[in-house]
Amino acid sequence: MRILITGAAGMVGRKLTERIVRDGGLGGRPIAELHLHDIVPPHAPDIPGATVSAMTGDLADENAADWLIASRPAVIFHLAGVVSGEAEVDFEKGYRVNLDGTRALFEAIRQAGDGYCPRVVFTSSIAVFGAPFPDVIPDDFHPTPLTSYGTQKLIGEALLADYSRRGFFDGVGIRLPTICVRPGKPNKAASSFFSSIIREPLAGLEVVLPVPRSVLHTHASPRSAVGFLVHAAGLDGDAIGPRRNLTMPGVAVTVGEQIEALERVAGNNVVRLIREEPDETVWSIVQNWPTRFASERARALGFVAEDSFDAIIRAHIEDEMAQA
Amino acid sequence: MRILITGAAGMVGRKLTERIVRDGGLGGRPIAELHLHDIVPPHAPDIPGATVSAMTGDLADENAADWLIASRPAVIFHLAGVVSGEAEVDFEKGYRVNLDGTRALFEAIRQAGDGYCPRVVFTSSIAVFGAPFPDVIPDDFHPTPLTSYGTQKLIGEALLADYSRRGFFDGVGIRLPTICVRPGKPNKAASSFFSSIIREPLAGLEVVLPVPRSVLHTHASPRSAVGFLVHAAGLDGDAIGPRRNLTMPGVAVTVGEQIEALERVAGNNVVRLIREEPDETVWSIVQNWPTRFASERARALGFVAEDSFDAIIRAHIEDEMAQA
Repeated sequence: MRILITGAAGMVGRKLTERIVRDGGLGGRPIAELHLHDIVPPHAPDIPGATVSAMTGDLADENAADWLIASRPAVIFHLAGVVSGEAEVDFEKGYRVNLDGTRALFEAIRQAGDGYCPRVVFTSSIAVFGAPFPDVIPDDFHPTPLTSYGTQKLIGEALLADYSRRGFFDGVGIRLPTICVRPGKPNKAASSFFSSIIREPLAGLEVVLPVPRSVLHTHASPRSAVGFLVHAAGLDGDAIGPRRNLTMPGVAVTVGEQIEALERVAGNNVVRLIREEPDETVWSIVQNWPTRFASERARALGFVAEDSFDAIIRAHIEDEMAQA
Repeated sequence: MRILITGAAGMVGRKLTERIVRDGGLGGRPIAELHLHDIVPPHAPDIPGATVSAMTGDLADENAADWLIASRPAVIFHLAGVVSGEAEVDFEKGYRVNLDGTRALFEAIRQAGDGYCPRVVFTSSIAVFGAPFPDVIPDDFHPTPLTSYGTQKLIGEALLADYSRRGFFDGVGIRLPTICVRPGKPNKAASSFFSSIIREPLAGLEVVLPVPRSVLHTHASPRSAVGFLVHAAGLDGDAIGPRRNLTMPGVAVTVGEQIEALERVAGNNVVRLIREEPDETVWSIVQNWPTRFASERARALGFVAEDSFDAIIRAHIEDEMAQA
């Protein structure tokens, strides 16, 4: 099987690559070729008997996408994108990468013109939704994004559905919830604290909680995000139907419940490293974020997330800390 | 006041131009400049004391949009577009005109960079919605288009909302229902019969009704469509809020009720010219079309359609037949 991953140097891209290498293939089919692409050089793992390439560049550049699909990969994971905060600060870069890059890839596939019809798995986001929200956001809630990033993801979803309907490729869009616990260091994203309040104390470091414990949000682990991608690659297109974009499941918990889970998993000495220090700016942003999703279609199609925040913490410990 | 109309040579564009000329302005402000643009030459009316220009070309061409907004029009009516049937047959043309053309116009405004922030009125369509539908389609029904045209209109709506949110212009998207009675001749559009069964008998001509009388659909007259555009030009942006795309009101009637209205307005001799001749192909298409809309937001913002199909027929007689 030939596989292409765009955005392969990002956190999810790296973990997806590791998973495919560990499994030795995708859906039981061994890897013949694995092509990794990103704006910075992705790490190319060694896979015995397979061709592995690492490519660097801007997907929106002329002919870049043609070159990426030259080997006619059967499965394309399109993860490449500028993140929410950057797309808001740099309007032109956001549209260039998230819209033009996505469209360039889709167009290259359409224009191949030799009967090529790959499975395309596109990582969308719950940022396609905008406040105000009901208590539980149904699968058919209307998308009214309140960020440029969410707008670009919504346009990607619309293109994916149309290109799939026309038979140019067989697309699945997966709307990821907040990924938690993100490995690495705290960053300036408003959502950073959801991961930091778990990751930093587990590493013996103090951390600030900038919002009230009552804040409710939906999370999935990096391991689950990779699981969604692998599952999406193998789905029967007819079973999905014309509505190609699916809201992924996750664990809906309050920040207080996150902390209780941390105490159950790691003890009171760890939880004591969390210092509550309300930040009105962060809270005012977070109040406009979606809380809980129904995700009925995705669950019915077999997408599985953790069943508790305890499991999310244990996944983080196993995947990030056991190696260290 | 300086006004720009794209798609000015189309049916709605011509009627909008006539209305503005007849009113001598827009929202009580006299016309200083009226710029008309289309892919075919629009007719430039003579307006005493005003500059009128008629421009021809492809909006997606390099620099075309810059040239269009060179005079910094305060109101831009963006009507240009390839229609549904053509966008489905010619995929590339549909995306070029409906997506690239729209984006080129929006980008030209953004890049003006001199504080320019016009009101942009964009004609979207109920084609952004796709079956299955509830009995009454609410304002917040999720858009899942089932045509490339509907996809392109949805993308235009998303861009309009984001460019407005960012303050690059002050946009209003209006989703038009089926325009009925369309003047002119029957065409190959599946929706053609909705107008033909009124227009042709009124002109003394026989006509075929290809669907059962029970088919329910929502209509607005060309006069109302122009009224929506003029009303949208004068709306207070703050009153609209961040959800910039509005489903216009209309008259929801069955085909049987259309024919009853025709009999009331024009008599039995006219109605006898309608021959029922079911066409399974047309019916199978029409069954996937939306029927009735709530349009609560648009009505609350002052958009007004006819209150009966009788009024739609009378508008057609006054606007199209009284002159003949």
